[in-house]
Amino acid sequence: MGRTVRLGRGGEFDLIRRLAEEGSLPPEVMIGPGDDGAVLAGGWVVSTDLSIEGVHFERAWITNEEVGFRAAAAAVSDLAAMAADPVGLLVSCAAAPNGEVDVEAVQTGIRALAQSVGACVIGGDLSRSPGPLILDVVAIGRADWPVQRDGAEPGDHVWVTGRLGGAAAAVRAWTSGAAPSATARAAFARPSPRVAEARCLVEQEAVDAMIDLSDGLAGDAAHIAAASGVSITLEATRLPIGEGLEGLGRDVALDLALHGGEDYELCFVTDPGAVDADGFRARFGVEVTRVGTVGEGEGVWLVDDEGPARRLERGGFDHWAVEGTT
Amino acid sequence: MGRTVRLGRGGEFDLIRRLAEEGSLPPEVMIGPGDDGAVLAGGWVVSTDLSIEGVHFERAWITNEEVGFRAAAAAVSDLAAMAADPVGLLVSCAAAPNGEVDVEAVQTGIRALAQSVGACVIGGDLSRSPGPLILDVVAIGRADWPVQRDGAEPGDHVWVTGRLGGAAAAVRAWTSGAAPSATARAAFARPSPRVAEARCLVEQEAVDAMIDLSDGLAGDAAHIAAASGVSITLEATRLPIGEGLEGLGRDVALDLALHGGEDYELCFVTDPGAVDADGFRARFGVEVTRVGTVGEGEGVWLVDDEGPARRLERGGFDHWAVEGTT
Repeated sequence: MGRTVRLGRGGEFDLIRRLAEEGSLPPEVMIGPGDDGAVLAGGWVVSTDLSIEGVHFERAWITNEEVGFRAAAAAVSDLAAMAADPVGLLVSCAAAPNGEVDVEAVQTGIRALAQSVGACVIGGDLSRSPGPLILDVVAIGRADWPVQRDGAEPGDHVWVTGRLGGAAAAVRAWTSGAAPSATARAAFARPSPRVAEARCLVEQEAVDAMIDLSDGLAGDAAHIAAASGVSITLEATRLPIGEGLEGLGRDVALDLALHGGEDYELCFVTDPGAVDADGFRARFGVEVTRVGTVGEGEGVWLVDDEGPARRLERGGFDHWAVEGTT
Repeated sequence: MGRTVRLGRGGEFDLIRRLAEEGSLPPEVMIGPGDDGAVLAGGWVVSTDLSIEGVHFERAWITNEEVGFRAAAAAVSDLAAMAADPVGLLVSCAAAPNGEVDVEAVQTGIRALAQSVGACVIGGDLSRSPGPLILDVVAIGRADWPVQRDGAEPGDHVWVTGRLGGAAAAVRAWTSGAAPSATARAAFARPSPRVAEARCLVEQEAVDAMIDLSDGLAGDAAHIAAASGVSITLEATRLPIGEGLEGLGRDVALDLALHGGEDYELCFVTDPGAVDADGFRARFGVEVTRVGTVGEGEGVWLVDDEGPARRLERGGFDHWAVEGTT
C-alpha cells in the first residue's frame, strides 16, 4: 500500500492535504502526496513545479534561457531530494502571442539543464497565455532507494549543501531597483540541482531524511520535522550564508538564508559522524555544512549566541510576489 | 531505444519538435515526444495538459468544480488515447490571491474526474497567480500495449467515439453572449475521457492507431496521417455532429465538428470490419461512427456529397481565445 507523509504548516500544505485522499492510494503508488515527488512501482519518481512570471521571476531580471533553466532546475531539484536519477522532463509552456517571449530560448535553457543532469525532454504541452509566461516542468526520474522526509530521529545531525540566501538576495536587490552581485544573480538564475551529491550521500547510506530547499531552510526543515515527528534546532552561527550577504547586515542575511527560498540546495539528516564534509567538498566542489540537530518535540527552532531558542514560523503558497513584485 | 513520432503541421508542433532532441532518448523511455503521452519502462504513460483561464475557459462560463473536472478530463483523455489505465494525477494550480477562485472547488472537480476513472491525486504544486487561474494536470497511467499514432495503413477505416462539436458550440454561444444548449454546455464542462472504451477496443486487437480529439478531428487526424505516412479522407455526411448543432446551419456545424476542438473523444483506425458498432454502443452507451478511410499519400481530406475532396489545413498552439475571449 502507498502511504502519505505529514506536511509542515502553511496554506499550500493544507490545500495539498485536502487534494490528496489519504489511505486511498492504488498499490502501484509507493509514495503519494506530501514528499518531494510521488514514487511509482518500478522506482519511478515524478514531481511537478510551476514557474510563473510575476510570481517566481520577472523577465526583466533574467534572460529567457535562464527562465527555462531555472524552471527545469527547480523541478529536477525535487528528484535530487529523493536521490532519484533524472530521466525525462515534460514541459508545459504558455506564452503571450505578442512574440515578446522567445519560447525557443526558454526551451534552450530547459534542454541545457536537462542535459546537465543526464535527462532529456520527452513531452509537454504548449499554449497561448493571456499574459504571464507560464512554465510547469514535470521531472521524472528513477530511484532504487527514494529518500523521504520522515526518517529523522532525535540525536541526528542536520546538514545543508552549498550556501543559502543568494537567490533571495538577488530578488531583494532587483525589487529595490539595484543590481544583485554576480554571485547572487547566478544563485537565482542558474541553480544547480544536487543530483550527483544526493546519490552519493544515499549510496553511503548516510541519509535518514532529505528535502530540497525551495521555500527556505526554516520552512523546508519544518517539513522534515513534521514528517518525522521530531523537532529541529538550527544554529544561526553555523548557517552557510551566501557569499556577499554579510554586507546586508547580519539580521537581513540570516533572514534571507532561513526564509528567502529558492536555494535548490539539499537539507538532509544523518547519524552523527556519518558525513565526510572535506571529502564531499573535494569530490563535488560544493560545501556541506552541519547546521543543526534533531531533537524530541516538534517544530523548527533557532539558537543564536546566548539567547533562548526561538521557534521559526512561516506559511506556504506565496513566493517572491509577497514582497511586491507583481 | 526510444523513438519519436512525426507530428502534423502547426506552430505548436514545430516547437515541440525542437524541444525534443530526436534520437537521444534514454533506454528507459520507450516512446518520447510526439504521441499523446511519453511511455516509460514498465508501461508507465505520462502526459501533461494546461488549462488556463482566458485561453481554455472563462470562469463566467462554468463552475470552479467544472474547471477542475475538465482540466483533469483533458489530461486523462491523453491516457485513453494510448489505451492506458489511469493511476494518478499531479496537479499544478496557480490562483490569484484575492480569494475569487474557490481552489477547493476546483480540487473537488479534479478528484471527481480522477475517481470516475479509478485514479487519485498523488501530488502537485500550488502557487499564487498574477492573474488567470492556471492548471496543469499531469496524468500517469499504465498500458500493457500503448497505442500510438503511427499504425494506420491504406485501406483502414477511421472511426470516432461520441459526437463532435458540442464543446465548440458552447464556446460559440458564450462568446456571442448567448447561453449554450444543455447538451453543448455539458460537452464543454464535463467531458468523459474514453478510458474504458479505449481499453476495450485495444483488448479486441482492433486498433492500428489512436488519438484523442483535443484540437478538432481535422487537426488530430492529421497527426495520425503524418505519423503513419498516409492520407485520411473524412466523409462529411458521416460525421456525428453534436446534438442540436444542426440549428446553426450545416456549414457551421461541420466547421465546429472538424475544427472546434476539445471534444475529448477518440479517433481510431482499424482494419475494415473490425468494429462492432452496435455492441460498442450497447456496452458503453456511446456511439462509435465510421467517419472515413485511410489512403496512400498525405494530409487530411474532406469529401462532401459530389464536390471534389478538399484538403483540411490547420495550425496548432492557440485555443478559444483566437475567437476573442481574452
